[in-house]
Amino acid sequence: MTEQLRPDGSLRHLLTLEGLSRPQLELLLERAQHLVRPLGARAAMSQALAGATVANLFTEPSTRTRVSFELAAKRLGAHVVNLEMQLSSRVKGESMLDTVYTLESLHVDAFVIRDAQAGVPQLVADHVAPHVSVLSAGEAHLSHPTQGLLDALTIYQRKQRFAGLAVAIVGDIRHSRVARSNWHALRTLGVTDLRIVAPPALMPEAHEFAGATRCSDFSAGIDGADVVMMLRIQKERMDQANLPDGARYFAAWGLTGARLKEARPDAIVMHPQPMNRGIEIAPEVADGPQSVIRDQVRNGVAVRMAVLAEVLGTRAGST
Amino acid sequence: MTEQLRPDGSLRHLLTLEGLSRPQLELLLERAQHLVRPLGARAAMSQALAGATVANLFTEPSTRTRVSFELAAKRLGAHVVNLEMQLSSRVKGESMLDTVYTLESLHVDAFVIRDAQAGVPQLVADHVAPHVSVLSAGEAHLSHPTQGLLDALTIYQRKQRFAGLAVAIVGDIRHSRVARSNWHALRTLGVTDLRIVAPPALMPEAHEFAGATRCSDFSAGIDGADVVMMLRIQKERMDQANLPDGARYFAAWGLTGARLKEARPDAIVMHPQPMNRGIEIAPEVADGPQSVIRDQVRNGVAVRMAVLAEVLGTRAGST
Amino acid sequence: MTEQLRPDGSLRHLLTLEGLSRPQLELLLERAQHLVRPLGARAAMSQALAGATVANLFTEPSTRTRVSFELAAKRLGAHVVNLEMQLSSRVKGESMLDTVYTLESLHVDAFVIRDAQAGVPQLVADHVAPHVSVLSAGEAHLSHPTQGLLDALTIYQRKQRFAGLAVAIVGDIRHSRVARSNWHALRTLGVTDLRIVAPPALMPEAHEFAGATRCSDFSAGIDGADVVMMLRIQKERMDQANLPDGARYFAAWGLTGARLKEARPDAIVMHPQPMNRGIEIAPEVADGPQSVIRDQVRNGVAVRMAVLAEVLGTRAGST
Repeated sequence: MTEQLRPDGSLRHLLTLEGLSRPQLELLLERAQHLVRPLGARAAMSQALAGATVANLFTEPSTRTRVSFELAAKRLGAHVVNLEMQLSSRVKGESMLDTVYTLESLHVDAFVIRDAQAGVPQLVADHVAPHVSVLSAGEAHLSHPTQGLLDALTIYQRKQRFAGLAVAIVGDIRHSRVARSNWHALRTLGVTDLRIVAPPALMPEAHEFAGATRCSDFSAGIDGADVVMMLRIQKERMDQANLPDGARYFAAWGLTGARLKEARPDAIVMHPQPMNRGIEIAPEVADGPQSVIRDQVRNGVAVRMAVLAEVLGTRAGST
Repeated sequence: MTEQLRPDGSLRHLLTLEGLSRPQLELLLERAQHLVRPLGARAAMSQALAGATVANLFTEPSTRTRVSFELAAKRLGAHVVNLEMQLSSRVKGESMLDTVYTLESLHVDAFVIRDAQAGVPQLVADHVAPHVSVLSAGEAHLSHPTQGLLDALTIYQRKQRFAGLAVAIVGDIRHSRVARSNWHALRTLGVTDLRIVAPPALMPEAHEFAGATRCSDFSAGIDGADVVMMLRIQKERMDQANLPDGARYFAAWGLTGARLKEARPDAIVMHPQPMNRGIEIAPEVADGPQSVIRDQVRNGVAVRMAVLAEVLGTRAGST
Repeated sequence: MTEQLRPDGSLRHLLTLEGLSRPQLELLLERAQHLVRPLGARAAMSQALAGATVANLFTEPSTRTRVSFELAAKRLGAHVVNLEMQLSSRVKGESMLDTVYTLESLHVDAFVIRDAQAGVPQLVADHVAPHVSVLSAGEAHLSHPTQGLLDALTIYQRKQRFAGLAVAIVGDIRHSRVARSNWHALRTLGVTDLRIVAPPALMPEAHEFAGATRCSDFSAGIDGADVVMMLRIQKERMDQANLPDGARYFAAWGLTGARLKEARPDAIVMHPQPMNRGIEIAPEVADGPQSVIRDQVRNGVAVRMAVLAEVLGTRAGST
């Protein structure tokens, strides 16, 4: 299995946040922070990756994440090609690896991959040439590393620390790659009070989320929290949780203004999007003063620029 | 309702031509004219919008208009992302406004929006941050402002005036955003003899097109016209007009060379495309010496460059 | 019928390799060779086509070829627009030629066209304005000129000559545009021992492939060959050849390591991709030391850059 790090310790792939050290995470966050611009300013731009080519391979629809990676690459001066695998070469039965080999031979320097199947980013990383990097843009229920980084950056911007924070992740933890990548990032960065708050049917396996506190009572779970991170719920998961419609799910697990009062008064509200307004989160909370949901999106492009620059930048002069 | 103009009178959004003053329209046309290049020359290019990002949100298929806006933005140095809403985030039930907020947080500076539903561009304009601009690329049957501008520019290039011209718009006026935007532009620019020529079933409501002459006789409608603008007819509209197939519609309302003789000898023939050749227009007229249909397309990219530069340009130095 | 060459002898369109002279082919190969970079280096880049616009019109899915042309154009500084014809304007019944006229009026300088129907690239070439170029990216079973060039370049890189080589093209010759373009290129470049090796049902018409040796015995066909080029087989073609499943086809016509021994020890193995691994080629051969399949892909982008620069470059200063 190919390592994420090069022998010199620099980042080659980003498949998971698991196993990255605290200094490595902090370095990425610091570089991303330099690329953050306030809304209303033009986006940060450079030519750091001029001459490089980034391929987005998305086998699941994901406008937000695909566009975020696309703009991150373009704003560093790279060329970008978008491939929706199910619509193109798979029609001809071509295997994904042959597509990857082909793109590599077309001088693609980095692959950004989203796939609903576990193991796909690692599989690609195991087969690409040594100069090529692979970035996961979401892998099954397992990992969404740039989301974990952008969430950590968002928390740090508001709280200026990780130590001592109480962070509650609420909803469908069981099927959430966002929750898992946040767990990886936040425990490494020093969050000790991490709570996973979910109906029993949506709790992860017992061996997962080591060190996190499990809580199936919403109120208790967010009591005194500095950060309340709501997750997207899908219809079929509501059924599993015996809350078989949006209204019943909302009554039990929707974050309302009243419920938010149980967290700290300066708690921030997060959501990885897309949101089901009125199901897992009330619109007035999503758009309210404690919400940092749009900051998360803005930070996402900065994080992706930082990661692309990190994995490709060392070769930037090697034209 | 958000105004199209900023407090200083500059153009922020372009949702409709209704309400724009004659000097405002003339300024846009003049700037567009500077960007027109003859066929065979390379397109006009600049870096006026380097660092800006334009998002095309199209919920209806429209190769021509999407590509025209895409090339206009790229030729000004902007980054462009294309989103087909029905194919991506709407799959997940995400509301359009959340998509807009997301793109805004990704530092999208302008949205180009086409939607079959009335009110969508205004809805977006009402919700974006103050530094963001919205351009309609076609809204229901109501408005297609850049089409109105490019048609006015095309007329001016050939006639060097608006005053005193007789302009006949022919066909399915009732459902045509092109006709409405032309009506807005041309009456403001000084066209006093504007005729809407259609079978009774395809005439607009009585309160619409104030100041235009209504005519359900094709020959009378184009008699002595300087400009004959044919509109696209859809199959279901032919049925409404009791002309339930292409041949019958063409016999009654198709522009042939013979019928064109009823207009002025130097009349120009226009069509917003895509054309139904042999239904609303004879191929020999579409490709004939009086046709300016390809000029319309060429002018379209110049108009869209002028509009993008106008709404975004004032912030160009604000990186 | 529009000629591929301008009156001054320079290349305007590339629709077929048939009729191009040996010096013309050699010039393109030489220019492409200058643009080849080893895997691991950044791709070759220039601004030779800055200000030019290339439109990819693909009516068949083809990730590889579309991306190869797209990157070739972008790496020369051109703007690129991608259109999938069946998904966009054809929905509205617009004819392809009207789409072409429209794009031409949007200052598209070159069209890259793939279509399953014979005659489409020529039809477009016959109708575009004199300054516009058309490149075929694959036309029915007839022609795939950039594939022929990249295959020739790949052979030359390994053999440093064409004269005296024995080249065996194996498989579904009858339906293969790749075989036809290789036949055009290689006989012009001096290959005299060109063999087409196929089951009788997949042999081309008797009047085709003049000068090539026909062979329906696989072993005899590749005996002593310097180059073994395997073609993709489609399921319906196996049925025609009375080898109605992958295993039976592979047993009879699949290139295995054992069979490859019948060629010269330094023979190279080629495949235009996408491959059916285990049907027309064994995976260990596709990935083995004699395979140059990835070189073919890498050379493809260099060839397409050379061709785009050749057809558009003479106008590069004409902004």
